[in-house]
Amino acid sequence: MKKVLIANRGEIALRIIRTCREMGLQTVAVYSTVDRDTLAVRFADEAVCIGPAPSAQSYLKIPAIIAAAEVTGADAIHPGYGFLSENAEFARICDDHDLTFIGPKAETISKMGDKSVAKETMQAAGVPVVPGSDGAVEDVTEGLAAAREAGFPVMIKASAGGGGKGMRMARDEAEFEKLFVAAGTEAQNAFGDGRLYIEKFVEEPRHIEIQLVGDGQGTVVHFGERECSIQRRHQKLLEEAPSPILDPDLRQRMGDAAIAGALAVDYRGAGTVEFLVDKNRDFYFMEMNTRIQVEHPVTEEVTDTDLIEWQLRVAEGEKITSGNHVPVGHSIECRINAEDPFRNFSPSPGKITAFHSPKGRGVRCDTHVYAGYTVPPTYDSMIAKLIVRETTRDRAITKMLRALDEFIIEGLKTTVPFHQQLLQDPRFVAGDFDTKFLERFELTPPE
Amino acid sequence: MKKVLIANRGEIALRIIRTCREMGLQTVAVYSTVDRDTLAVRFADEAVCIGPAPSAQSYLKIPAIIAAAEVTGADAIHPGYGFLSENAEFARICDDHDLTFIGPKAETISKMGDKSVAKETMQAAGVPVVPGSDGAVEDVTEGLAAAREAGFPVMIKASAGGGGKGMRMARDEAEFEKLFVAAGTEAQNAFGDGRLYIEKFVEEPRHIEIQLVGDGQGTVVHFGERECSIQRRHQKLLEEAPSPILDPDLRQRMGDAAIAGALAVDYRGAGTVEFLVDKNRDFYFMEMNTRIQVEHPVTEEVTDTDLIEWQLRVAEGEKITSGNHVPVGHSIECRINAEDPFRNFSPSPGKITAFHSPKGRGVRCDTHVYAGYTVPPTYDSMIAKLIVRETTRDRAITKMLRALDEFIIEGLKTTVPFHQQLLQDPRFVAGDFDTKFLERFELTPPE
Repeated sequence: MKKVLIANRGEIALRIIRTCREMGLQTVAVYSTVDRDTLAVRFADEAVCIGPAPSAQSYLKIPAIIAAAEVTGADAIHPGYGFLSENAEFARICDDHDLTFIGPKAETISKMGDKSVAKETMQAAGVPVVPGSDGAVEDVTEGLAAAREAGFPVMIKASAGGGGKGMRMARDEAEFEKLFVAAGTEAQNAFGDGRLYIEKFVEEPRHIEIQLVGDGQGTVVHFGERECSIQRRHQKLLEEAPSPILDPDLRQRMGDAAIAGALAVDYRGAGTVEFLVDKNRDFYFMEMNTRIQVEHPVTEEVTDTDLIEWQLRVAEGEKITSGNHVPVGHSIECRINAEDPFRNFSPSPGKITAFHSPKGRGVRCDTHVYAGYTVPPTYDSMIAKLIVRETTRDRAITKMLRALDEFIIEGLKTTVPFHQQLLQDPRFVAGDFDTKFLERFELTPPE
Repeated sequence: MKKVLIANRGEIALRIIRTCREMGLQTVAVYSTVDRDTLAVRFADEAVCIGPAPSAQSYLKIPAIIAAAEVTGADAIHPGYGFLSENAEFARICDDHDLTFIGPKAETISKMGDKSVAKETMQAAGVPVVPGSDGAVEDVTEGLAAAREAGFPVMIKASAGGGGKGMRMARDEAEFEKLFVAAGTEAQNAFGDGRLYIEKFVEEPRHIEIQLVGDGQGTVVHFGERECSIQRRHQKLLEEAPSPILDPDLRQRMGDAAIAGALAVDYRGAGTVEFLVDKNRDFYFMEMNTRIQVEHPVTEEVTDTDLIEWQLRVAEGEKITSGNHVPVGHSIECRINAEDPFRNFSPSPGKITAFHSPKGRGVRCDTHVYAGYTVPPTYDSMIAKLIVRETTRDRAITKMLRALDEFIIEGLKTTVPFHQQLLQDPRFVAGDFDTKFLERFELTPPE
C-alpha cells in the first residue's frame, strides 16, 4: 500500500490524511465543487474533483471515485464514515479493481447491514440480544407467551412499522391483552399490515458501544467502550470514554461479547458493536457499525492508540499481536455543529468570519474549517470535534468547559452554548443519564 | 487564592490562564500598549494596560504590576518565564503587599541567581559540579595542580572573563604550561585583570535538565529530564523528553542529585536543575532555574501532569504526597520563531496574513498568535511552541514532521524549515548530538 485515496470530506478526510502522512503513505483527496477550498484538498498530496455538490453526484458516485483512484495510481481507498463507508457494493467494486478497501470484507458489511441477519449472527455467537418473539406472533396468546418469556415491561411493535405507529408499551399481562388488539388495528391502518412482534422494554437504556479491531486472521481485540447516551433524535452530540457506569467486570463481559460476535464473521478492520445497557446493567446487542466512527478519538485518547493506523495495518494484512486495551484516564468529545441550539438545532451554514480553536494541554480539536471558510448547506452540519483528555471525568468536564469558553467561531451559530449548559447539568456531572436524557433537558436561552 | 495576575505576555500568559480557569481561579492579564490585541487579554477575566512597549516601562515595571494587582483585587502573581520571574526583589515586594508570588522564596531566587553561591550550595549538598580550582589560582604551579586534580583536558578561564577572551583548552601538562601565560596576558589586556581559574573540559557535553517541584515543607519530587542540547548560541530551539541517552539508572541518579540540591534550600515551587552530561555519562551541575521553563510541555506530555497547576498548588501551601514521576512515551517541542533561518535567524516581525496551527492526535500547539495578528519587533521572537507526544521517539519525530508540514504561517518568515531539516538529519534521528551540534549543522537553502 503506497497511495491512499480518501473517499470522504470534512474533518475525517483530514484525520485520515494525518495518519497516512505519519505512516509514509501518499494521499489523494477527492472533492465536490463546493469543497475546493477545504483543508483536506490543501494537505493531501493530490486532489481530484469528482463532481458537483450533491452527494449522489460526487461522494456517493462510485465510478467517479474509482476513476480518480485509477488516474492517480492510488492502490487503496479509505471510505471514512457515512457516504460509501458501509456500502458492500462499493467494497466489492474496490476489490474488483485491485484497490484495497480500508474496511471489512463486502460480505461482512452486507451481513451487519441487514438488521435481522446481524441480530441472528450475534445471537448465534452468544451475544445477548433484546429478548422477544422470534419475528411476528400469530395472536394475543402467542404474544403473551413471548412477553412472559422476555419479562415485563415489553414493547408491542408493528412488523412493518416505524415512527412509533402500532407501538405500545405493556407493563403487565392485563395491559398487554388490552393493548395488543389496539396496536394491531393501528398497524393495519398505518401500514396495511397488522402483524406485531414483541420485544422486552429496555428500562433507562444507555447507549454504550465497544470499539474493536479484527485482522481477519482469527484475532479481534477491543479498545474498551464509549458512552454515547447523550443523543438528540438518535444523533450523538457528546461521547465519552470510559462510561461512568462501567466497571472492569462489565467492561470485560461486554468486550468479550463484542469480540465473540466479531469473530463469528472473522471480522477484519475497525468496527463498533453498539449495545443498550439497562438499569440492571444487563446489556443487549443493538447493531454493529463496520467503519470508523465519528467518536473514535475518545477511545484513542484513553488507549493511546491511532485507530486509523490500526485500520490501515490490518487492511495491509498485518496480524494483531497485542491484547485488549484498557482505558487510562478520561476523554470527552463534543460535536460542534453549525446549528442554532436555541432554534431547535436548525442548520446555520455560512461564512466563518473569525475562528480560534481551543488549545492547550490535553485539548484536541479535529476540524476542517478555518477563518474565511464557508460552511456549505449541502452536508452534515458538524464543523469540529472538540476532544479533551484528563486523568478523571471531573477534570475532563472542567477542561472541556475551559476549552469551549475559548472557542471563537464567528459568522454562524454553533452548538457550543448547548455543550456549555449540558456539561454543567448536575445529572450529567453525576453520570446519571440515559438515551432519553436530552428529551427532558431544557436549554436556558441566552440573555 | 482566588484571583491570579499574570505578569507576562505571549504564549505563557495564555498557558497560565488556561490552568487557572481549569482550577476555578479568576485571572488578570497585564499588557503593554502593543499587546492590546493578544489572546491573553481576550481570554483573561480582566486586563490592565501597564505601560508602553519597552519592557522596562511595562513588563519589568514592578510598581505598575503591583498597582494592577491592587486595583483588580488579585491575591497572587504568576511571573511566567523571563521578565520578573527570577527577580528576588519582585518576589519580596509581592510578599510585602500580601500577594502570593507563584515561585520560590525571594531568598532562594537570590541564592540560585548568584552562580558561585549556587555552585557552592549544590556542591555542599553532594551534587556533582564541574571539577576545577577553587576560584582563581596564584600561578602556573597551582594551576597545574588544579588541572591534574580535575583531569585533562581542562579549560583555562579568565576570572573577570566572558566572550572567550583569555580562554584556552589544554589537553596535557605541556600544553597547559604553554597556554597559561598567554591566557593571563590576554585576560590582563581584555579586562585589566589577569587572574585565571581552571575547570575540567566537559567533552561532548549534552544539556540535560531535571524538572522538579518542591513544597517548601520538606518534599521535592522530580518529573524526569529534558534533553535540551539542540541550541544555537545558548538559545534552545528543540527540546525533548526523555533524553535519548538516559537510562533509568542515570535518570534516578540525576533526579536524586537534583532533589538533594533543592532540599538543601528547602525549595518551594517548580524549578529546573540544569546539568552537563559528558561522553562518559558523568553529569555536572550547571545552574538552577527557579521558574517555569519554556520547554515544560514536553515534561507534561510524558508525565501526564500540569506543571502550572503544581506551581499554583504548592504556592497555596499544599503538601506534595506523590512520588517522583516516570516518563511514559516520548515528547518533542519545536520552538517556532519569527526568524529567517536562511538569513542567520534574523528577526522577522510583521503581520500574520494566514494562520493554521497543526492539529490531530498527540499534537499540541501553544501559541498566542492568530491570522491578522502583528508580531511586534519588541519582544522575544517565539510565536509558537509545537509539541508532539507519541509512544516512541521515532514516532514522535515522524509526527512532528507531519505537524510542521501542515503549519501555515504566512506574512513572515519562521523557523519551521529549520526544524524540518533538523528532524531529518541522520545524527539527530540517531540521538547522536551534543550542545555543539548546531555549530556544524548546515541548512540547505530553499530552491
